[in-house]
Amino acid sequence: FLSIMLCFPSHGNVLLIVGDDAGFETQVYNNTVCRTPNINYLAKKSVIFKHAYTTVSSCSPSRSSILSGLPQHQNGMYGLHQGYHHFMSFDAVQSLPRILKHAQIRTGIIGKKHVGPESVYPFDFAETEENNSIMQVGRNITRIKELVQEFFNTQDTRPFFLYVAFHDPHRCGHTHPEYGNFCEKFGNGDPGMGIIADWKPIHYTALDVQLPPFVQDTPAARADIAAQYTTISRLDQGIGLVLKELHNAGHANDTLVLYTSDNGIPFPNGRTNLYESGMSEPMLVSSPTHKTRWSQETNAMASTLDILPTILDWFQLSYPKYKIFKENVKLSGKSLLPILKEEPTSGWETVYASHNLHEITMYYPMRVVKHKNYRLIQNLAYRMPFPIDQDFYISPSFQDILNRTRDHTETHWFKTLNDYYYRSEWELYDLKTDPLETHNLVSDKSYADVLKNLKKKLLSWQLATDDPWRCSPGGVLEDSGPYKENPQCMPLDNRL
Amino acid sequence: FLSIMLCFPSHGNVLLIVGDDAGFETQVYNNTVCRTPNINYLAKKSVIFKHAYTTVSSCSPSRSSILSGLPQHQNGMYGLHQGYHHFMSFDAVQSLPRILKHAQIRTGIIGKKHVGPESVYPFDFAETEENNSIMQVGRNITRIKELVQEFFNTQDTRPFFLYVAFHDPHRCGHTHPEYGNFCEKFGNGDPGMGIIADWKPIHYTALDVQLPPFVQDTPAARADIAAQYTTISRLDQGIGLVLKELHNAGHANDTLVLYTSDNGIPFPNGRTNLYESGMSEPMLVSSPTHKTRWSQETNAMASTLDILPTILDWFQLSYPKYKIFKENVKLSGKSLLPILKEEPTSGWETVYASHNLHEITMYYPMRVVKHKNYRLIQNLAYRMPFPIDQDFYISPSFQDILNRTRDHTETHWFKTLNDYYYRSEWELYDLKTDPLETHNLVSDKSYADVLKNLKKKLLSWQLATDDPWRCSPGGVLEDSGPYKENPQCMPLDNRL
Ligand SMILES: [Ca+2]
Ligand SMILES: [Ca+2]
Ligand SMILES: [Mg+2]
Ligand SMILES: [Mg+2]
Repeated sequence: FLSIMLCFPSHGNVLLIVGDDAGFETQVYNNTVCRTPNINYLAKKSVIFKHAYTTVSSCSPSRSSILSGLPQHQNGMYGLHQGYHHFMSFDAVQSLPRILKHAQIRTGIIGKKHVGPESVYPFDFAETEENNSIMQVGRNITRIKELVQEFFNTQDTRPFFLYVAFHDPHRCGHTHPEYGNFCEKFGNGDPGMGIIADWKPIHYTALDVQLPPFVQDTPAARADIAAQYTTISRLDQGIGLVLKELHNAGHANDTLVLYTSDNGIPFPNGRTNLYESGMSEPMLVSSPTHKTRWSQETNAMASTLDILPTILDWFQLSYPKYKIFKENVKLSGKSLLPILKEEPTSGWETVYASHNLHEITMYYPMRVVKHKNYRLIQNLAYRMPFPIDQDFYISPSFQDILNRTRDHTETHWFKTLNDYYYRSEWELYDLKTDPLETHNLVSDKSYADVLKNLKKKLLSWQLATDDPWRCSPGGVLEDSGPYKENPQCMPLDNRL
Repeated sequence: FLSIMLCFPSHGNVLLIVGDDAGFETQVYNNTVCRTPNINYLAKKSVIFKHAYTTVSSCSPSRSSILSGLPQHQNGMYGLHQGYHHFMSFDAVQSLPRILKHAQIRTGIIGKKHVGPESVYPFDFAETEENNSIMQVGRNITRIKELVQEFFNTQDTRPFFLYVAFHDPHRCGHTHPEYGNFCEKFGNGDPGMGIIADWKPIHYTALDVQLPPFVQDTPAARADIAAQYTTISRLDQGIGLVLKELHNAGHANDTLVLYTSDNGIPFPNGRTNLYESGMSEPMLVSSPTHKTRWSQETNAMASTLDILPTILDWFQLSYPKYKIFKENVKLSGKSLLPILKEEPTSGWETVYASHNLHEITMYYPMRVVKHKNYRLIQNLAYRMPFPIDQDFYISPSFQDILNRTRDHTETHWFKTLNDYYYRSEWELYDLKTDPLETHNLVSDKSYADVLKNLKKKLLSWQLATDDPWRCSPGGVLEDSGPYKENPQCMPLDNRL
């Protein structure tokens, strides 16, 4: 036994916990209403990232970029994986489970996978929507606890990477409305709802909730948030159960634990958007061997693209050299572990994001850089309205805005539905003075240098990540034959 | 041997020949300049379709619909398959090779495959771009001849389905400009060009070519067409070689031969468009057991969606009952064999088309019905400019239009570049009086009934083929949970 352990002198193991459409509804991020004692407990043993960002605010694309370290436009998951959306990462992509498997690290996934193909995302232990009901492996925290026990109940002494991907607090009003808009009644013991033995639901009244500033203050939206909070209690208690199993398995002191979410909350201006409200994510990184900064906050800007480099760093593994469609692949994220030792003074002030589609009918490519207090967005299909997804469309919060707009009554929202649909090609915001991003500075001459600098950064990242859209919408990318070694953007003269 | 033959009392075999971006450059279709003696020969033993249409004017989507009998929006091949475009048909799709394999018919493909995944399009014998140079298996007609010999040189006495998918006369200026814009010099014996032993190139002068009315009459476009003609001579002679091998193998009298193309010619208003110029295709159907109509023309409107039903009919096989994403799959095409017996008097006056993307950056969904002399087009992303592909962009013909437009000189084209880019959401044309489709009748009150009727037909087809875009661009399709049994379009109020 000892000799086997000595073969793996690295730090140990990794537990990655991802909430589904989770946001900042926790005391850790200054929400004083929604009770999340288990996330609080994890935060006490973590460095707390105040400026962490997803690289895309859509489920499968985000999960593919978490697991591959590559933005969606580079790994091929341009939109949702499931059903007729049918996006898939490129066969060549070297993902975390693939690299770790090759490095003799045991890999497991419990919960929502939502990426493919299998050959790119192979897990040794997999209990997901592909072989279970997503309700059971993603929301039934007692079942999730048992699966974690099963994962740990093994003779296999290799280090492990366990990815627990909760389906909470995702909406379910468009698939399982019988359980409430957030499946907040699922397993609560009421007649017909079933019982999740380990879950003690917490209920909130619409009056009590703390509305994010980008959600309209109306009874409908408040009730929607209250339901979300109850579902968050299930996520939080699930996290507590998972951490307890980690402890019971004797791995509390040799396991790096990360907690984050895949995309913005499913409320107006949230999910599928790349504004601050759709792009910023909770992120806790808890290392048993880096206790000095436990419970401290960091202002370093982190990206979900940093998760793969962090985990490889933890396992002391290097990223493989390989090509995707003849292009060398280089990671644009970097390990967060140095931040666990001390607050960095530079090098953590820029993050990028890239969105193409969510559902297959929702083509709305965006490219984004956030640098210090500025955000620059390019909306490539800006002449078409911003698309709305099936799930969000029928939500009480969106219906509320739609109906109030139709009725010409006050929406209590910070923007109009028309402004939400129709965006400028370029949007530049100064978040220091305009945290809600309502004042587009792109034509403001005093920001000309900022604009120029951010455009340059964004294009550099698109080039470094082989973005097929880097010439859109006004040009064509020529990258084969005589242009293979020196790809070029050629102008279309199409008035864009 | 006899006993084995008796097990297969059906008509025999099928040879499907598909040109790549081929059009009407043959005497069969009244081109008096481009010499295609072998296509002429085949036409003498065929019924000649004067009104055949592809269901999508883009390579992979079209090939997937030929092989699956389902439009691209139903089979999942929403755009190109190769490289970072990365579209794939749904795993459940029952394609021709899959159905025929199951029915103990031997299947072969030689040339351009451009569809996937392998499990959906499995061929017993496959020599394609996946395991060869596409130049060799798609343009080297001597190599193609040898591969056909190899396919026939077998002890396997089962009936066969052989799909010969030439890469000619596709452009190659953006990948192999050293061989000319249409690879018209590849294998012509000039220094560095190699020799294709069986090919006798035919050369044309720019002055002599017959321009389609949708191509501008300029020296650049004429030279482009002249190069295309030379490549067509290779396609034509390749068809001759394939037919000779069919004869040599003793199958000239028991094999149904079909010839068509996948999409419109790669000229302005052609490929990627669903106007008449992009959607109409050559189609020859030659049955050794239906000689009475040999060399006759038919006015029946045929679709590339009819190819699968025709081949199943020939083999006396029925289409399997199955579901794609819980929806029963029904073919919307039908067998062409009855037309080989007599000219139909009804039932062949409507065809449909459906396009989503070509390259991954080229989102421009269109839905089309052609009924009698009318065409109705819905452009779902009409506020964005019509996209231009990498290959066509650098072609002499498109550069000519672009440069003349920039220079404000006469384009000699029948429309402006700006009109080409910016289209109306709905386009209605009466081809009897307006064959070039320049006069949009959608607002003409005297066509209100036609418009209404065509819109109804189009939506019915979208419903019958489970089109995920059927509520776009003004609505959201709700089709799960409470809407599963009764999907609905819900309005977005987004001014579309
Ligand atoms: Ca999500
Ligand atoms: Ca083609
Ligand atoms: Mg590169
Ligand atoms: Mg159906």
